[in-house]
Amino acid sequence: MNRSNGSPSDRSITGSGATVAASDFLQLNPADAPRGGMSDWLARQIRRAVAEGLLPPGSRLPATRVLADELGVSRGVVTEAYRRLTEDGHVEGRGRAGTVVLAAPLVRPPEDDPVEREHGGRGQAGRGPVGRRAVGRRAEERGTGKRPTGEWRAAALRAEEGDGTSEERALFGDPLDTGVFDALRAAPARVDLSPGLPDLAAFPRAAWLRAERAVLAGLVPADFGYGDPRGTPALRRAVARWLALNRGIAADPDEVLIVAGTAQALGLLALVLKDEGVTRVALEDPSSLGIRQHLRNSGLASPPVPVDEQGVRVDALRATGARVALLTPAHQFPTGVVLDGVRRRELADWARDGGLIIEDDYDAEHRYDRPPVPALRSTLADHVAYAGSVSKLLAPALRVGWLLAPRRYRDALVDAKRFADLGNAALPQLVLAHLMESGELERHLRFLRRRHRGRRDAMIAALADRLPAAVVHGAAAGLHLTVTLEPGCDDVALAATALEHGVKVQPLSWHAQRPGRPGLVLGYAASTPSDIREGVSVLEGLLR
Amino acid sequence: MNRSNGSPSDRSITGSGATVAASDFLQLNPADAPRGGMSDWLARQIRRAVAEGLLPPGSRLPATRVLADELGVSRGVVTEAYRRLTEDGHVEGRGRAGTVVLAAPLVRPPEDDPVEREHGGRGQAGRGPVGRRAVGRRAEERGTGKRPTGEWRAAALRAEEGDGTSEERALFGDPLDTGVFDALRAAPARVDLSPGLPDLAAFPRAAWLRAERAVLAGLVPADFGYGDPRGTPALRRAVARWLALNRGIAADPDEVLIVAGTAQALGLLALVLKDEGVTRVALEDPSSLGIRQHLRNSGLASPPVPVDEQGVRVDALRATGARVALLTPAHQFPTGVVLDGVRRRELADWARDGGLIIEDDYDAEHRYDRPPVPALRSTLADHVAYAGSVSKLLAPALRVGWLLAPRRYRDALVDAKRFADLGNAALPQLVLAHLMESGELERHLRFLRRRHRGRRDAMIAALADRLPAAVVHGAAAGLHLTVTLEPGCDDVALAATALEHGVKVQPLSWHAQRPGRPGLVLGYAASTPSDIREGVSVLEGLLR
Repeated sequence: MNRSNGSPSDRSITGSGATVAASDFLQLNPADAPRGGMSDWLARQIRRAVAEGLLPPGSRLPATRVLADELGVSRGVVTEAYRRLTEDGHVEGRGRAGTVVLAAPLVRPPEDDPVEREHGGRGQAGRGPVGRRAVGRRAEERGTGKRPTGEWRAAALRAEEGDGTSEERALFGDPLDTGVFDALRAAPARVDLSPGLPDLAAFPRAAWLRAERAVLAGLVPADFGYGDPRGTPALRRAVARWLALNRGIAADPDEVLIVAGTAQALGLLALVLKDEGVTRVALEDPSSLGIRQHLRNSGLASPPVPVDEQGVRVDALRATGARVALLTPAHQFPTGVVLDGVRRRELADWARDGGLIIEDDYDAEHRYDRPPVPALRSTLADHVAYAGSVSKLLAPALRVGWLLAPRRYRDALVDAKRFADLGNAALPQLVLAHLMESGELERHLRFLRRRHRGRRDAMIAALADRLPAAVVHGAAAGLHLTVTLEPGCDDVALAATALEHGVKVQPLSWHAQRPGRPGLVLGYAASTPSDIREGVSVLEGLLR
Repeated sequence: MNRSNGSPSDRSITGSGATVAASDFLQLNPADAPRGGMSDWLARQIRRAVAEGLLPPGSRLPATRVLADELGVSRGVVTEAYRRLTEDGHVEGRGRAGTVVLAAPLVRPPEDDPVEREHGGRGQAGRGPVGRRAVGRRAEERGTGKRPTGEWRAAALRAEEGDGTSEERALFGDPLDTGVFDALRAAPARVDLSPGLPDLAAFPRAAWLRAERAVLAGLVPADFGYGDPRGTPALRRAVARWLALNRGIAADPDEVLIVAGTAQALGLLALVLKDEGVTRVALEDPSSLGIRQHLRNSGLASPPVPVDEQGVRVDALRATGARVALLTPAHQFPTGVVLDGVRRRELADWARDGGLIIEDDYDAEHRYDRPPVPALRSTLADHVAYAGSVSKLLAPALRVGWLLAPRRYRDALVDAKRFADLGNAALPQLVLAHLMESGELERHLRFLRRRHRGRRDAMIAALADRLPAAVVHGAAAGLHLTVTLEPGCDDVALAATALEHGVKVQPLSWHAQRPGRPGLVLGYAASTPSDIREGVSVLEGLLR
């Protein structure tokens, strides 16, 4: 929602010290707008300006009244455009402080058009060495003759140590090596900015123990025996209620299959889908490397579908011919884009034409500057297999998640779960159900949102301060943001060198199937503001 | 160990009221013994007598001195024979009360010779109806003209209700229906004598909660994150130590893979073995129906290998040509036979010729009347994939187990575990490690042994009292025993009718691939003595 009001600087866009008239600065010409689509057009123009860096994070948009005057449109048009920008996470209304740009969605350069280039992507094998040469090249281009540590230290360090000899660099060797996340997780680091973790120090130990005591006291002996492979009735009820309240999903507890996290949900789905002849699951590009590894391990191809500022490109999805797509609509991983209304409608059409969407709702409860986006599952129950978990709500170490699949897959999925492990452990399920039903989990989530928002802000501030050239994406929600760096930068070498310097980050290119902008995926939720500042400061030293 | 001493009745075998001279009664002729194998021969003769019902449970063997005199052999020969009989669970030394017969191993009738009949087994489809007719026939044969309820009530009830219409009967319809255990578990029953459960009421809630409090207090935030898919180092250490103390296994913690119970261990192994071209896993026959379902679901055939009083028949295993065999050497499921030394040596030869043994050590810690039998894994580390779990130590609902595989499979198994669920949940692993390292689990096991022994004795007493014609097998260890019934009895119909009368039992034929003696698999560990008596009394009513 746009909450700008008439404060003194309403007539200008402020950011990076510049103050200019809004429509001039953005070169807006309302005559370009399609008939009846003025709000859409305006939102798109502002998105583009954010993406191109014309409106860096922290910039303030003009008040709606002012911009409406300048453009000669009704104020409602601007209000609606700002509402959409707020919803998809580009801007945030900050009361008297106006409407402020948060972060840019990741937009691919035009030459990366997915439909044309889909089959011409560079192979995995070539990425490492090419990337490394690029770092060297850039280091040379940037060399200023000043002290070596003032230059691109990644390159300098590599030159000193020889190419690819350090343990850290070996860690980042082949992203499709299935042990890569284990090795990275085990590597010591002072500051861990890996994405995908909530604030683990906030785990509600006392509430968990209280709930466990209550649960243990109330169990009958049979509860300790073999259980329903679909999960305990108590947790399935609690999850159904949780999803109704938080994700707009109306589901019966009988539709809920409790699983050991999203990894297992995906594994069970892969089994069942392969049994019915599916050989490919389309993936957003970029998307989670872990999920790509998982599909590959299951023997499924993963044709890449590009993501732009409106979300996954449904035309490109259609072009792949894949019948199944795994998507992250609420907060695309890693770009942070929110799937917009137009794309939702296109996706619904694709699904009704026989497509199955696997909705990975991995961090949807964590939003800071925008209202919740309902899950696709809420309107497409027959076409969406919905997967969520407590990994981002409480802790990945709990290994509890849920899968709500279209009716036709349910029996096969229960069989798959039964043979996988006879069902999740009962005790943690019951404790979790207790935390959900008692309101403790909701309280914990509110606490996390506040804490994560502070950390997110610390990360944005540190980036603005230390890496002003980096473009920030997807910071309105979730547990991480993504920064893109200048073309030619080798993000894999950068991540490896950062690890040598005690800072763990993930290279954006790890998560991409086709070549794209280099960058870093930076988790902020699990690190303190001072650790975040320290980590970004190390990155600055390496990139300077 | 034989602990008989010189009490007055040493010269006789007592049981069922009869008292006769031992060697006469057993028709023992030492001249039949092979040279140098007198102890073996004597043990075999006594096993046969037990199996044939000449020595029913409760009979007392003569003192070693007495039998040695009668046979004209050295006392050491008899002592050694009794030691073997004690070890494999046929008899128990009871101090001043002498050496008492516990239960008989299940011996197939000669016409069931496995090698000849392996490919001539009756199909699953035919079992139900044929069996049901058999019940009817037997009911007619047994009919005495007394009040109908005094006859074989199963048959009477079925006749009243129509064949196969009741829910209970439908439950027992097709044992290879993957949902059969779920349905059976969900069916209400006053007395649940299903096998496979320890005393669930004894779950150490207070100790668990204390351990959980201690664990939660000591965790660092990273412990709540994604962990090592192999399991937490603490539990892997604790399991390695537990296996050294309890199962004679010398293993490094690095060899231990923590899994979600034996079901998952089997699923992961199936994946990895199929990848290297395995298509069949030989199974003991009878063996666990659940495991047979599991292999079938994994696309693996399960050639049956008969079990006799010495354990699995290794000659028959060789004859299957299978490279992999899943075995329960410590307490064969469901017969309770302990694999004897000769068979162990034969199995070792088979394994060294390229065979892989999957050792399902499901209830080995529960032994009452004999010293522990070391796991096969203890001497065949390169040829055994060893699976154990806490399902029978604490509770199946915990879904925690371990898998120790030969080195060549380890990396592939870790990959399989990673993609299955990224590793077990951390918190229960750490609580369990705490219970193991603090000695709490050992204390709990000692408590369980006492309690289970009491229940086992109650079951044996109830059976002797109510079902004297039923032959008891495998009661020296574990959580269940098996009774065999007269040929022609339809154990599936009996189990279904028992369920109609509120008593849950499993038919032995469920667990058999080839036709064999009908019977029931009766769990006693999870039921109180009075429930056990009630359950057996209902069975008596149905069988009378």
